[in-house]
Amino acid sequence: MERVLLTGASLAVGAGLGASLCGFLSSAERRGGAERLGLLARVPVLPVPSVQASELTVSPGRSTAVMKYGFPSLANIKTRESYVTSYDPRTRTASWVIEQLNPASLSGPSDRKYCDFKEDDSVHLYHRSTNTDYRGSGFDRGHLAAAANHKWSQKAMEDTFYLSNVAPQNPHLNQNAWNNLEKLCRSLTKHYLNVYVCTGPLYLPRQEADGKLYVRYQVLGRNHVAVPTHFFKVVILERAGGAGVELRSYVLPNEPVDEKIPLERFLVPIETIERASGLLFVPNIMKRATSLQAIAAK
Amino acid sequence: MERVLLTGASLAVGAGLGASLCGFLSSAERRGGAERLGLLARVPVLPVPSVQASELTVSPGRSTAVMKYGFPSLANIKTRESYVTSYDPRTRTASWVIEQLNPASLSGPSDRKYCDFKEDDSVHLYHRSTNTDYRGSGFDRGHLAAAANHKWSQKAMEDTFYLSNVAPQNPHLNQNAWNNLEKLCRSLTKHYLNVYVCTGPLYLPRQEADGKLYVRYQVLGRNHVAVPTHFFKVVILERAGGAGVELRSYVLPNEPVDEKIPLERFLVPIETIERASGLLFVPNIMKRATSLQAIAAK
Repeated sequence: MERVLLTGASLAVGAGLGASLCGFLSSAERRGGAERLGLLARVPVLPVPSVQASELTVSPGRSTAVMKYGFPSLANIKTRESYVTSYDPRTRTASWVIEQLNPASLSGPSDRKYCDFKEDDSVHLYHRSTNTDYRGSGFDRGHLAAAANHKWSQKAMEDTFYLSNVAPQNPHLNQNAWNNLEKLCRSLTKHYLNVYVCTGPLYLPRQEADGKLYVRYQVLGRNHVAVPTHFFKVVILERAGGAGVELRSYVLPNEPVDEKIPLERFLVPIETIERASGLLFVPNIMKRATSLQAIAAK
Repeated sequence: MERVLLTGASLAVGAGLGASLCGFLSSAERRGGAERLGLLARVPVLPVPSVQASELTVSPGRSTAVMKYGFPSLANIKTRESYVTSYDPRTRTASWVIEQLNPASLSGPSDRKYCDFKEDDSVHLYHRSTNTDYRGSGFDRGHLAAAANHKWSQKAMEDTFYLSNVAPQNPHLNQNAWNNLEKLCRSLTKHYLNVYVCTGPLYLPRQEADGKLYVRYQVLGRNHVAVPTHFFKVVILERAGGAGVELRSYVLPNEPVDEKIPLERFLVPIETIERASGLLFVPNIMKRATSLQAIAAK
């Protein structure tokens, strides 16, 4: 079984990412076999429900197919018509949201004019964001799983309007460069057998005047909804004919991004996202893919 | 079954906590029955391993007794000789650590001079803190489960030296007021049947010059180990003779704290910690206690 991993071989970082990302990137070369075993090197002494991501078996079926390449983490998993997500009760947003796109899911009669953003009452009231938290904040309610990805079913589209699938997003970013990235993901369904998209927030440190690194992010409203400093999108592309899997991972800053900058400029090694987010993607993908090509730059 | 909950009835906030905490406190009166049901109002559609804290059954036995009052969250649970913990791979520290103290665990021949801080190799290399991250940082490697709580066994004491049981702590705080709080917890074993202590980091927002709220914290070393802005300790005190449970919850800022300030000044309503941490304590305790008295001020 051939396994090709080109992470970090060549690298282009988008103009808006800043120096903070480079700290993560510098150790791209450290990814080795022993390191990937770290996740499984120990098991808990007690039979508590701590299941490692890569031990999870997913049975076949429509709603489980989306998780073919595994769970990046296992905390507070919620399954919806159009996506599977892990909720972070401290930041009041998702840690990640995974959806599966294909030509069938992208077309249909669903209309977002019938959809309203709504509180997720599966989240405890203490840890839930509300529409009031966003009101007057200057931030959009940015979809993580995009509404336009799920035209196939009105219910699927409505499920993307849960505020647990939303994070505070700069309006310019949401309506321009980020929207273009979502369109790019949809267009990839024409060229690949299956397209899996995992989206989430990042809270990246930056160097301040004292030379030290700090994470700093605004929180909104009474419930202190965290405003991510950046967003990631990890796109898993299944080639036809068993020709393996291609991985594209993007990081965009949560600020206005000039549409003229090619989206390829925001490609980063997957390790960057894995380190910054506390999530793991590659160990799971490697278990299911005959080969993996990580696209770090075009 | 009598259930008494005095949270928020009267309140004293320690001098060092700052205005940011007050946003949480103002809604203390909102805790109601319907709210506590929120956690259980939905179950996932898929049989994924997302077990709600309050569904967990704990079988009897020495090492499981520590979890009698439940799991505040269920992500990345690790069980050690002296504690149970939930690890946060994004901040590179624990979300919480729970230990059970009694006179037997506090005495014994163990000696910390044979203990060294060590990396936790059950954590993926990308998400693990190292001694190098702390070196020259100006921060102590602050124990969450305290070494002196586990003199009963050298192994139990050594397990408190995993860096996953450690967070960057202001040296003055670690060696003075925080040390006094640990001593207070130990002294409570003389007056209560059982003493359960849950300790963890907090990242609290504060208002900046623009009038908005921001979370800001330093990160240390190559692995970007988060420096908490505050620490919490939730102490669950089991009264003898089935006389119910008493709850004391403290928040101290991660900065020098004058030892002359009585520790009672740092008592906060448990809701404050539940909201800020993304954890839940009360729903689990209520299931197991005949009565609960939350001590918010002495």
